[in-house]
Amino acid sequence: MITYTFTNKDTLTNQLYNFIKEDIVKGTLKEHDKLPSKRALAKHLNISTITVENAYLQLLSEGYIYSKPRSGYYVSHVDLHTIKRKKPILKPEKKQTYWMDFSSNSIDPEHFPFTPWSKISRHVISQEQPQLLEAMGLSGVWELRVAIARYLLEFKDIEVSPEQIIIGAGSEYFYGLLIQFFGLDAVYGLEIPGYATIKEIYESYHVHYSSIPIDQDGLKVDALKETLCEVIHVTPSHHFPTGITMPISRRAKLLDWASVHPKRYIIEDDYDSEFRMMGKPLPSLFSIDTTDHVIYMNTFTKSLASTIRIGYLVLPAHLVEAFQKKFHFYTCPVSSFEQHILAHFISEGYFEKHINRMRTSYKRKRDEILTRFNNHPIASLGHISEENAGLHFLLTIDVPIKVNDFKERLKKEGIKIKSLSDYGAKEAPIFIINYSSINLDLLEKAFDQMVKIIKTY
Amino acid sequence: MITYTFTNKDTLTNQLYNFIKEDIVKGTLKEHDKLPSKRALAKHLNISTITVENAYLQLLSEGYIYSKPRSGYYVSHVDLHTIKRKKPILKPEKKQTYWMDFSSNSIDPEHFPFTPWSKISRHVISQEQPQLLEAMGLSGVWELRVAIARYLLEFKDIEVSPEQIIIGAGSEYFYGLLIQFFGLDAVYGLEIPGYATIKEIYESYHVHYSSIPIDQDGLKVDALKETLCEVIHVTPSHHFPTGITMPISRRAKLLDWASVHPKRYIIEDDYDSEFRMMGKPLPSLFSIDTTDHVIYMNTFTKSLASTIRIGYLVLPAHLVEAFQKKFHFYTCPVSSFEQHILAHFISEGYFEKHINRMRTSYKRKRDEILTRFNNHPIASLGHISEENAGLHFLLTIDVPIKVNDFKERLKKEGIKIKSLSDYGAKEAPIFIINYSSINLDLLEKAFDQMVKIIKTY
Repeated sequence: MITYTFTNKDTLTNQLYNFIKEDIVKGTLKEHDKLPSKRALAKHLNISTITVENAYLQLLSEGYIYSKPRSGYYVSHVDLHTIKRKKPILKPEKKQTYWMDFSSNSIDPEHFPFTPWSKISRHVISQEQPQLLEAMGLSGVWELRVAIARYLLEFKDIEVSPEQIIIGAGSEYFYGLLIQFFGLDAVYGLEIPGYATIKEIYESYHVHYSSIPIDQDGLKVDALKETLCEVIHVTPSHHFPTGITMPISRRAKLLDWASVHPKRYIIEDDYDSEFRMMGKPLPSLFSIDTTDHVIYMNTFTKSLASTIRIGYLVLPAHLVEAFQKKFHFYTCPVSSFEQHILAHFISEGYFEKHINRMRTSYKRKRDEILTRFNNHPIASLGHISEENAGLHFLLTIDVPIKVNDFKERLKKEGIKIKSLSDYGAKEAPIFIINYSSINLDLLEKAFDQMVKIIKTY
Repeated sequence: MITYTFTNKDTLTNQLYNFIKEDIVKGTLKEHDKLPSKRALAKHLNISTITVENAYLQLLSEGYIYSKPRSGYYVSHVDLHTIKRKKPILKPEKKQTYWMDFSSNSIDPEHFPFTPWSKISRHVISQEQPQLLEAMGLSGVWELRVAIARYLLEFKDIEVSPEQIIIGAGSEYFYGLLIQFFGLDAVYGLEIPGYATIKEIYESYHVHYSSIPIDQDGLKVDALKETLCEVIHVTPSHHFPTGITMPISRRAKLLDWASVHPKRYIIEDDYDSEFRMMGKPLPSLFSIDTTDHVIYMNTFTKSLASTIRIGYLVLPAHLVEAFQKKFHFYTCPVSSFEQHILAHFISEGYFEKHINRMRTSYKRKRDEILTRFNNHPIASLGHISEENAGLHFLLTIDVPIKVNDFKERLKKEGIKIKSLSDYGAKEAPIFIINYSSINLDLLEKAFDQMVKIIKTY
């Protein structure tokens, strides 16, 4: 009979299970061999019957042995040549670090409203436990959708009912959803230059898209009309990356384009409209559209933190049912815990306070950067433009340089910067300065480096 | 000159802005009309020049007017026939409520570990602020990936490095990602019966898929071999919805299928392996595969809460770089706040404790349900099977009934239940009992209703 020596390093059941398994894997116990009865083996090994039974049951459940009623246990047919343990390859992730990153949209820890966020978290976790565990459909937590609807009405003059709002994990999630909604055969359009990520997502799904050029008023609707585009993505309140605001005449023309065909839709990405530095926010396309052809999209990436992945879509009323029907099988990808926290954060006025505080703080930071720029030798080599809205502006170098070489050499010095050409524009020495997270103390040092490299051309 | 009467209901700037805008929209002010100079209008209306300037700047930024250097402001061409405010359609969401829902995978509020979760939340928000705002790539927060790697090694005998782990918003997110990775032209395979959602997602993306039947050992590999499938989705540790555990011989056969072609991959969905009620968890396909053709997938949906949308993918080492490269433009869709909280929750041992407590609690609940079933008249009309693993088992009605009619009539009584045929199986009176969230006090009442309806056939 099979005989094993037990140690005290593991339970007897586990040891017996492993001994028998090894015998099967090695071939010591062969297919259709009968195992000893539980009682016989227990007696033979001087262990309890229950130990043998548990080991047998485990082997049985994993399929190493099979049982025949009123007969006993037998070894299964196991072809094991692909089964063996292996070591994984350990390969640490390489990361280049930058002491100055003009391409980052992250925010300083000192700016995140940790105090109210923490207070609300505690409240939500202690007072709203049943709600936190309630199943949510595609659209997300009702309370957050109500809070966003109220916010949109008060601060953006957008009047919608919470049913029209869908919560999601940022704009990347929504692009995927919209591709599924409008179909992989639809033709999409995007601004060029524009968000690189949308292009990447369209390519990842192999959907057809047209790149529509922009002029000083934003997307060229005449160029759009010459394409087969059905769904166009635009950033009218603050074009990314040039910073252009689309004037009302162009907006009307774009709405006209959409209104003449039922399949045409405009995706209005209002990504950083909260941070307009002059005047009040512009009325959104969504709020002035009478033909229900605009889908409004916004996220809390810029206004709260890029690591809180919450955004929302506002649908024209007539699409609400179609979305719910088409996507009945999806669940909102955002944790209900943070949705409830954010709902309180907005409806108790913290979001408004935070935005106002940040707007002031960013305005001060922007002004400080402009002052330092103007007082630095770099001011004689370039100029800054589109500084009135959002959290980035443009730096144009006015003397001849090699754009890619310039970026590459800055990278070697630990400075990350992107040019308009990184977003599809023609190659020109125009660079994007994202300033929300840069360290002002290192700004002159970064300008020094730039000047040093510029002077070598 | 244009003349307006001001009230004290809004700022003078806003009122002036609105008056002029209305005049432009109504046509009182026409294209290319010259506006009065700031100083002249200010004097005329008895307001300050700065008020007029701010109103003009707002109109300018919105494109209602344009400026000519050294000349002044003029009315733009604005074609406004599509621009007007409208009311949204308010349409309340309809929801049927059930007093007994055998299809739900939510958990009772009393079972969620709110106390440690809240404690860790406080700690993370007060002590790890810089980390919470640090940009994360596709893969998610490093600390969580380390915690999961350790957990997998200790509890599932899966040895991987954190680089192989990708955090995402549950399995629905991963299906979309995998479709993009393997391509829209690849042929996918799924178990039938099986998860309805995967099928819906494949259909939503219009990808080709084959439905592979199962037998008593799970997925029929011989049937799989007859298809063009390259990527097969399986639930070997606990087949959904039948509850079958795939024995080792079938696992070996499935690994063999994958190993013979470099494009073949197995997606191993280990969705509720934590809740095996008898014996230890089975070794995963991933851990016994030597040819790197298995992608392991799991979520915290069943083990923590279905409203915390966190899951993870474990890639074979050789796919890590390809994933990072292909998806360099994506950011992990899960909030870094909850990733850090979950990382602590796992690495400080709370997750293990929670799982053990839940396993005991679910086992007790399951036993109680089985006892009540056996003591109820329904026991003479049906039987329960596959009750040893996971959070659901099967109820077969042994007398003739009409399956869809039965479900429909239960629905009218407020009882929701799904049958195997809802997941693609042939129509048979076999029903799935998800018991994690049902209220035991109402169980007999639900059985009574079932018996009442069964007896009418």
